[in-house]
Order: sequence, then structure tokens, then C-alpha cells
Amino acid sequence: MSNQQVMIQFPDGKQQLFAQGVTLTDIAKAISPALAKKAVAGSVNGTTVDLTRPILTDAQIAIYDANSAEGIEVIRHSTAHLLAQAVKRLYPTAHLGVGPVIENGFYYDIELDHSFVPEDLQKIEKEMNKIVKENLAISRKEVTKVEAAQLFAHDPLKLELLEAIPVEELVTVYEQGEFYDLCRGPHVPSTGRLQHFTLTNLSGAYWRGDSNNQMLQRIYGVAFANKEDMQAYFIFLEEAEKRNHRKLGKELELFMFSEEAPGMPFYLANGQILRNELESFLRELQTRYDYKELRTPLMMNQRLWEQSGHWQHYKENMYFSQVDEQKFALKPMNCPGHMLIYKNDYHSYRDLPIRMAEFGQVHRHEFSGALNGLLRVRSFCQDDAHIFVRPDQIEDEITLALQIIDHVYRVFGFTYEIELSTRPEDFMGELELWDKAETALENVLKKLGYRYKVNAGDGAFYGPKIDIHIQDAIKRSHQCATVQLDFQLPEKFDLTYVNEQNDKVRPVVIHRAVFGSIDRFLGILIEHFGGAFPLWLAPKQVEVIGVSTVHNAYVEEVYEQLRRAGIRASIDRRQEKLGKKIREAQLKKVPYILVLGDQEQENTTVTIRSYHQENLETMALENFLLAAKREMEEKRLPMTGDLH
Amino acid sequence: MSNQQVMIQFPDGKQQLFAQGVTLTDIAKAISPALAKKAVAGSVNGTTVDLTRPILTDAQIAIYDANSAEGIEVIRHSTAHLLAQAVKRLYPTAHLGVGPVIENGFYYDIELDHSFVPEDLQKIEKEMNKIVKENLAISRKEVTKVEAAQLFAHDPLKLELLEAIPVEELVTVYEQGEFYDLCRGPHVPSTGRLQHFTLTNLSGAYWRGDSNNQMLQRIYGVAFANKEDMQAYFIFLEEAEKRNHRKLGKELELFMFSEEAPGMPFYLANGQILRNELESFLRELQTRYDYKELRTPLMMNQRLWEQSGHWQHYKENMYFSQVDEQKFALKPMNCPGHMLIYKNDYHSYRDLPIRMAEFGQVHRHEFSGALNGLLRVRSFCQDDAHIFVRPDQIEDEITLALQIIDHVYRVFGFTYEIELSTRPEDFMGELELWDKAETALENVLKKLGYRYKVNAGDGAFYGPKIDIHIQDAIKRSHQCATVQLDFQLPEKFDLTYVNEQNDKVRPVVIHRAVFGSIDRFLGILIEHFGGAFPLWLAPKQVEVIGVSTVHNAYVEEVYEQLRRAGIRASIDRRQEKLGKKIREAQLKKVPYILVLGDQEQENTTVTIRSYHQENLETMALENFLLAAKREMEEKRLPMTGDLH
Repeated sequence: MSNQQVMIQFPDGKQQLFAQGVTLTDIAKAISPALAKKAVAGSVNGTTVDLTRPILTDAQIAIYDANSAEGIEVIRHSTAHLLAQAVKRLYPTAHLGVGPVIENGFYYDIELDHSFVPEDLQKIEKEMNKIVKENLAISRKEVTKVEAAQLFAHDPLKLELLEAIPVEELVTVYEQGEFYDLCRGPHVPSTGRLQHFTLTNLSGAYWRGDSNNQMLQRIYGVAFANKEDMQAYFIFLEEAEKRNHRKLGKELELFMFSEEAPGMPFYLANGQILRNELESFLRELQTRYDYKELRTPLMMNQRLWEQSGHWQHYKENMYFSQVDEQKFALKPMNCPGHMLIYKNDYHSYRDLPIRMAEFGQVHRHEFSGALNGLLRVRSFCQDDAHIFVRPDQIEDEITLALQIIDHVYRVFGFTYEIELSTRPEDFMGELELWDKAETALENVLKKLGYRYKVNAGDGAFYGPKIDIHIQDAIKRSHQCATVQLDFQLPEKFDLTYVNEQNDKVRPVVIHRAVFGSIDRFLGILIEHFGGAFPLWLAPKQVEVIGVSTVHNAYVEEVYEQLRRAGIRASIDRRQEKLGKKIREAQLKKVPYILVLGDQEQENTTVTIRSYHQENLETMALENFLLAAKREMEEKRLPMTGDLH
Repeated sequence: MSNQQVMIQFPDGKQQLFAQGVTLTDIAKAISPALAKKAVAGSVNGTTVDLTRPILTDAQIAIYDANSAEGIEVIRHSTAHLLAQAVKRLYPTAHLGVGPVIENGFYYDIELDHSFVPEDLQKIEKEMNKIVKENLAISRKEVTKVEAAQLFAHDPLKLELLEAIPVEELVTVYEQGEFYDLCRGPHVPSTGRLQHFTLTNLSGAYWRGDSNNQMLQRIYGVAFANKEDMQAYFIFLEEAEKRNHRKLGKELELFMFSEEAPGMPFYLANGQILRNELESFLRELQTRYDYKELRTPLMMNQRLWEQSGHWQHYKENMYFSQVDEQKFALKPMNCPGHMLIYKNDYHSYRDLPIRMAEFGQVHRHEFSGALNGLLRVRSFCQDDAHIFVRPDQIEDEITLALQIIDHVYRVFGFTYEIELSTRPEDFMGELELWDKAETALENVLKKLGYRYKVNAGDGAFYGPKIDIHIQDAIKRSHQCATVQLDFQLPEKFDLTYVNEQNDKVRPVVIHRAVFGSIDRFLGILIEHFGGAFPLWLAPKQVEVIGVSTVHNAYVEEVYEQLRRAGIRASIDRRQEKLGKKIREAQLKKVPYILVLGDQEQENTTVTIRSYHQENLETMALENFLLAAKREMEEKRLPMTGDLH
């Protein structure tokens, strides 16, 4: 190997010699001018770097364009600098804080006397575009800490950041035109590479996230590889906002919150109907699978939580109460209660599996900043089950648990992905049992034909687990169901059954949840369906509207028949125009609006406006009742064949 | 009027002159020797006295035999003395405490080195009977406190009682033979009058009920007017014990308790089925009456409880929890949560009445000594409703509330009595509103044709109320349902609606519960039905038993059809004799046992053993399914026409 040349290895394994000091830009140009034009950054021996960094030794390299994860990250970082430069040009007295990359974009924290208003963002964005047009080269240089302190002598925040760096270390500074910033990089080679960005909003933020420090102004922005990605992002945002469960919760009168009980939902009549339907649905399914429904106290002695280990590992999130020198805790989980019930009785190997289920209300403290509508609350109802099995029953029981989960998720139209988490380093219990259990879980997943991801070492210390991630209508992923094996609780509670040899041995416990938290699942469902629920779930299923008061008798008759058929219906009796009544029922996303006039009254028919279909349909009342009942019984999804 | 004569007036108003100093015994003898023989005590000018007390002035009198409430009270008191005398004869070193009358009998507290065992009770009872045969006269005398202290010089407990009496007061002492006791009386004239008694049990009791004092031994006994009453009492006890819900709860696997959560029931699978059925039943009924079901948090800020007044009046019974300097309380009642929901929205006079219902789990601390199975717990679920009405709607809404209550109680076969409690002295709110409300309540009760008792002045300070007392199968009375008007909560929470004149005015709140506590109601139901529930409630409705294994296929087919018809059934698959299987299903009080053999298999019939009927019945499977479903739907009571 010559000392003037370096051996460059490409991601596909091919190798080529280049002059020592070659840059990734040079290499990209050598491959193709088109690649050089698209490139925004690269990597040398696994480290992401600027395209202009000279390569001095043999190296494995990669070149990133905007469509790669690494490339878009660099673009977002450079766009943060672009923002900072524009702010400095417009507000020379501004002091800069930090400007990191976040999901879909970036922000920069700024200290400035002037309080930004939304109109300022347009001005700043205009300046940013001007700098893009200037196509300033972006260059990196290494300086000593002392040199850096001189450079940033008038930037108190930057000086504070510098203080944290050891005195003997070199620091890097990036320059573009008159602007320079303290930064590790890497960045795109010039400002002309930054195209698809926009500033989105403003907020306040404590310097370094510490509420003892001064409040800075934070400007948020997003940046994408291309125009299409940016458009898709804004369409997604709009769609997500339309579906926002807190907004819909208010509009559809599903639930409310009060400052008197932060993080604890109040379910209004419509929301409670949804909850009751979800519970009934799962209750029926669980009965079919021979689960026994139980109900355990919400509060139990502190010593029980010490025994279960919650006290040691979870007390920060628990609510305690003391009366007459007795310390109680509100349950954060249902497991210990179910263990007490198991322990209350003698069990033979013939009695297993025992499947205990509870719709159990648990309380878990969360910081108020973490609360988020129904998605993150302080009290929620778990559809919790504990299945007590012999080791040889693990496989069958996991299969049944996954069948229930599959059944439930299909009903809501969720697709899902499965992850299997295996033995962690700090596992407890016998190695042999772990091996058996992990094999059992894999066997089940294979037998059921699932593709799944293995998270090696990610299991709980008490056993391996299967997590299920559902994907909602706008492709967001939520972890809801879980199936976990537990070898430790039976030890902690000294649970036994008597085996065929008449020996007392330990059962294995399977923790299982389908919805997870009914409250959170409901939040997800509201967003998934955008508030337009399948008929069986819809709080109001049918709105009956008469064309005029002469149809009142027929309207009442239809209503009465709907009621008797177990359909949640109401009559809009207000003295409003027909059009207004229809519009308002549609705004409330009522699945079916029945409009009744002369024709309908004469022929005992109903004219139906379906929330999901444009065209009207007229059918015999009797047929509508049958079709609606069938649609409810089959729990059909909207659009996949309502009324057929 | 001569000074040697007194005018005696009898209960019927008749008057007669007697010599001054005449006794009630003399008067009774004058009326009839039979009356004198039956008399046990009497009253002079409204005060119950000994028959032997001389009458010195004109007086209204009454003479009581054992069948009067006053008479039996005196007998029970004298029997306590009889017990004490027998104990003193058998254990001369015994020191006596107090010996009061209690429901159905009496007890006496005794200090003695010897620890009584149940066999001692027989010995003591024998001695008591001996003293009865001796027919000792019982006489009263008044002595000074100093004389009394000499009499009881060797009875330290009596001396302690004497201390509490003012020194200038005379005290009374009763004597019978060698025995005398410090006592206010009155008593029967001689020990021969005491016939129908028995000692029932033993317990420990702190002297004067104070756990800082020494522990005495308490002997309990009962006494009745006649043999029949005593027998009826023991039959009732036996019946009550057979129906004891704690015993049946264990036998039928309905619920359990744990020392980890004292006073908080754990519902096992069978108990949870009962709870779910009760909830569904009321939920359906409430939906029909246009109630809106809600669900409010279990824990709310302390300041809310201060606003509602619970903090000031109820905090001793509340559980508190503090996190991050925020103080929360577990709800002891659901009202404040419903007030917040009402307040969350604008209301016009057209929107009222608004009927909010919740199956709300509340926590109320009780001393551990007060806990009693499901009848007295620390956490229970209320079927709570709050109805927000305009004053002119009170009458209609109370009517509807009473209709629901009547409907529910009829379904369980409860008869009930109604009490109306009116304005107390410390009432709050406008007098006019109170008057209107009380008139409205009376109007409703009259219109519905109820007989009711008025408890004048017994209403709550916030409004008048109607309480409903149900009578169970063994004639015990339980207060469950309540309908209360509340003028104060709307004030405290500043609730308003806009009336026809566009003014903001206060609604009236009606608190209403039917079951009261579902947990307690379930306890009452278990005892009412003795665990043999109506078909619709029975946790297991049908047990299917094959005569031999050759009938297995048919057994499975019948089971499958039952399951599909929504009937809770199971198959007894154990390898046990037919007789044993039938006996065990009967012990579990399963309403129907289907026994399937050759005949049944051949003809697709079932042979039915009803829990409530002696004779077997064979019918087509199809007909059984229809009949059972009808029995469930109509919620028929056992014995009042099952399968018809």
C-alpha cells in the first residue's frame, strides 16, 4: 500500500484506491455527478461525517442522500443552523442556546428581548430561503477551547456550554457565511442543499430544561427529503388532528377531565356506552374461552405489596393511604389479588388451567406533564387475566390467548405485529424452565404462522413475553396486548398444586391483557375510527327525523320498534329545518339517519342516510331492523358492508 | 275525694276507687284472679313499676302480662337476676358487673377466676330452674348510698357503679332469697314467674366496654313469654344460620375475604356472575327510564371534598392519599363527581330532568369490629343516581324513581314499607321550597296508593327523603332504597339552568339508590333466597349428568345447545356414581339438573330435577330450552312457576 493512496471500500464490498486526503464529495463525483449532487453527508468507518472531511487512511465509506435516515438527520440539523443564521441576521441581539434534531425536524432555543409572534416565523422563513439561495458553503474547523471562548465571547449561552468541555479538548465550529456555531456536526456541504423545510411553531423552554434557569424562546420547524414527504406529513398532521381523541371526546360528548381529578377520566353517557360495549364484548368472548371473571379490592395492605415486590420496585407510582396505623395502597396491578384467590383454595393438577379475568381499576401516579387524554392517565381499567398452568400447558394456553387477541383485533380492523422478548441477563428462576418456555412461545408463534421479531434479552426478569403492536387507520403503532410468562409470582406467593405423584409443585402464571387499558384502547379506537364507530359500538346508532309534524306518529312507531330491537335510537323532535337536523346528526357521526316522510309512512319504509355512504337507500322498516341487527351482531366494520 | 282512697283509671278509660296504698297486684286480683296470675309488671302514670309498689295518689295504670312488650322486657331483666343468683350460689367468689336486657334476652358480666366452659351453662341453667321452683318473692327497697356501699362491700364492681350516683340520692336494691342486686327495676313479683329461658353463649367483655379495663366473662341468655315463642326463636336462628350469607358465600364459592384487605370483598366467579346480572338488570331498566350511565374517578382532590362538605362532616370515614403535595381522597359518595359533570355543560330548562346513574365504587372506613360479611364493608358499589330537576318536576321524578324501585323489589319477591322523613329543626334552604317538596312527596305516595309512616323532623338538613325498608323471606327488615331531595348541593356547586325567563336558577337534586350497596344487597339476597337463586341469577343454571359413558355424545350435544341458548351449564364429567353427582349438584343449589340416559338419548328429551320440586319431569330438549329461556327472561321467582 502506497502512502499517497487509501483503499476505499463501498457498502457493496467493492474496493477502490484514492489519493490520501480524498473527500467523500470527490469519491461521489468519481462515481457519478448525479450522486455528488444528491449527496448530503456520508460515513467513514461507521461514523457519520461531512462530505468535505479528508480521508487519510483506508476506510469503509457510505454516501447518504436525503432519502436515507442518516441523510435526513443531517439535513434537519443543518436546517436548525439555517434557522439560527436567519434569526441572527434579523435580530442581531439574539443569543443562541441549543438547536437539536427532533422527530420530523428540529428546534432552536433563543434568548431575545423581542417576543416572537407567529408572523415572525414567516419573516424568518423568508430569510432562511434567502440564505439557501446564497448557497453558502458550510465548513468545519477545530479550535481550542480558548479560541472558541473568544469566538463566542458575546454569546453567554454558548460560553456556558463550552464550560462543560474539558480544557484540553478541541472543539468544532461550523461556519456558513457570516454565521458560525459551536457544533459537533456533521452538516450538508452548503446551504443550497436545504430545500424542504418550514417553521411550525413557537414555545417557551427553560434553558437546559431546568425550571430554575431563564425561559428561552423555542422555534420549531420540520424538514424533509422532498416536497412529497413534507406534504404527506402535513396531511398526516391534519388527519391526526381531525381524529384527535381529546377533540372528538368533547365533540361527541364521550368523556371529560376535571382539575379536581387530574389524569382521571370522567366518562359521559356516550363514552360509558362505548366502555360497556367493549367490556361486554370481551366478557362474552372470555366466557366462551372458559375464563372466570372476578373482582378484587382496589386497596390492600402495604405488606401485600411488599410481598409482591411492588413496594420495592414501583412505590413511586403508587398511592398510599393510612388509617388507624394500617397502611394501605391502591392497587397499581391486579396480580396480587388474583394470587390471593388462587391461594385460598386447594388445587390439583386436574384443576389447571385456571383462567382468572378481571376488569380491574388500577391507579398509577404519573407526573402531570406526562398526562395525555385517555392515552396516559392516572387511573384506568385493565382487562387483566392471570392463567395458572402446569408447565406442559404453556403452549396450549398461549395459543388460546393469541386466538382471543387475534379475534378482538380483527373485529376492530387492526393489523398487528408480534415481538418475542427472551431471557434477560438478570433473569430469575430455573434455566431449564426458561428454555422450555421460550421454545413453547416460539413453537406457538410458528404453529400459528406468525412472523415475529425476537428481542433477545428483552424479557422481564420473571419470564419471557410476547408483545403485540397494533397499527391504526393512519399507520401509527400502539402496544396494547401482552402475554407474559411469570415464574416468580408463584414463588413469592408460595402457590402450589398437587401433581400426579401427589407432590406440591409450582404452577406457572401467564399474565394476559387484550385491550391493555380499556381507557387507552378507547382513546386509540376513537382516533382509529375518527369517532365514526362501527354500528355495534356507536353510542347513538340511529337518528330518526320526520319530514314534518304530520309524520310524528310514524316517527314514534319507528322509534319504538328500534328500541324494542335493542337499537340505540333517538328522535330529533326540535323545531328545526330538516336539513339542519340531518347535518347535525352527521356531525355527531350517527351511523344511520332515518328520514321519514309521506312515502315512508305510506309504505312502512325508511329512507336511510348512512354516515359512510353517499347515496340514500329506502327499504322496508322490517328489513332495516333485521339488517341493522345483523350488522351489530356481526360487529361489522364501517364501509365493509353496512346493511348487507 | 277521701284521703283514704285513690281514683284508678284503666287503659280503656274506666275509673275505680281503691284504698290508698293499693298495689297493682291487688287491683289485678280485684279484676280477676286469672289476670293476677298472668301479670308480671305494670305501669303507674306511664312509668313501668313492680306489681307490689303501693299507689298513693290518683293514677292511670296498666297491668302487663308476658305477651306485652313491657312485660317481656321485665321478664328478661328478672331472668338476668336469676342468672346472677345461680352464679353466686355455684361460684360464691364471683363478682357481678352489669346485667341488662338485650334483643330477645339478656346478659350478665361476671368476674371470676374460673373460666366458664359451655358445660357450665347447663349447670347454671339447672340452678336457675331450681330457684324458679323455690318461687322466691322479689322485693324492692330503697337505701342510702352509704347503706348500699355496706351491702356491696365485697362487690368491687358494684361499688364502682355506686360511685357514679350522687351521694344524696336513694338507690334501689332488689332482693330474692339470699340474693340482692343494685338495680332500678322493675321486676316480676317472684322467681316462679320466670319459665321460658335458656342460656345461649359465652363471651369476653371489657368492664364498662372500655378496653383499658379488665376483661369480664359474659353469659348470654334469651327469655320469652311462652314456649312457642322460644321455639319460634330457635327455629328462626337455625333458619338464619342456614341462610347465613358468609357460610353460603363459602359453600357456593361466591366471595372471600382476606386479611390483606379487611372489609373489602373478593368476588369469586360465581359471585361475580350474580353481581353482573344485578348490574345488567338495573342498567337495562335505567336505560328504559332514560337514565344516562356515567363513570367518575375514584379519587379526587381534597378541596372538592371540602367544597361538598364531606371533609367537614365525614372525614373520619374517608381514605386520603397524598402525592407531590396534592391531597386526594377516595370517594365515599358519588355526588360531587356528578355535580362536576352537570357543571361542565350549559343547561336550559328544556334539558331537565337529567338523570345520571353510576355503578360507583365507594370507600368508607369502618372499625374492624363493625365489619360483617357483605352487610358491612369498607368498599362497596353503589347503584347511585342523581336526577337534576326543576322544582315543578319533583313529583313526576319521584314517581318514576318509586316505580323503578317497586319493579326491582317485586322481581326479588320483597315486600316493603315506606317512611317519609320531613324537615328537621336544623334545615337549610327556603321554607317555601321545603313545603312544596314535602307536599310533592306526600302527593306521590298517596297517588301511588302507598301506606307510609311519617318521621316528622327526621329528614336530612338538605332535604326531605323517602326510605324504603324491604322484608326478606324470614321477615327481617333491611333499609336499601332511598329517594332524597337535596336543595344544598346545587348551592354548594353553584349549579344552574336557564329558565323560560332566561334567568339562571338552581335545579333541585334527587339522590336515588335502589340496591343501595350492591354488595350489601347481594348479601341480603343470598340470605333471602338461602342461596337457591332464581334461574336468571343462578351462577350455574343447569348441571348435565349422563347416566353412563355411553351417553357422552348426547350429553355434549345437550350442553352445546344450552350454551348456545345463553344458559350457564356444565357437565359433571367425573367418574363418580350418578347418585353422588346429583346430590352434589343439589348441595350447590343448581336450579335444574338434567339426567340423560337411554330414554332421553333416544327421544331427544331431558329428565329434569328442579331444585324446588320433588317430582321429576321429562320433556323434549327443545321445550326445556324454551321454558328455561322464558323463565330467565321473565326473571321468575323460584317456586312461583318454574318451567311453566
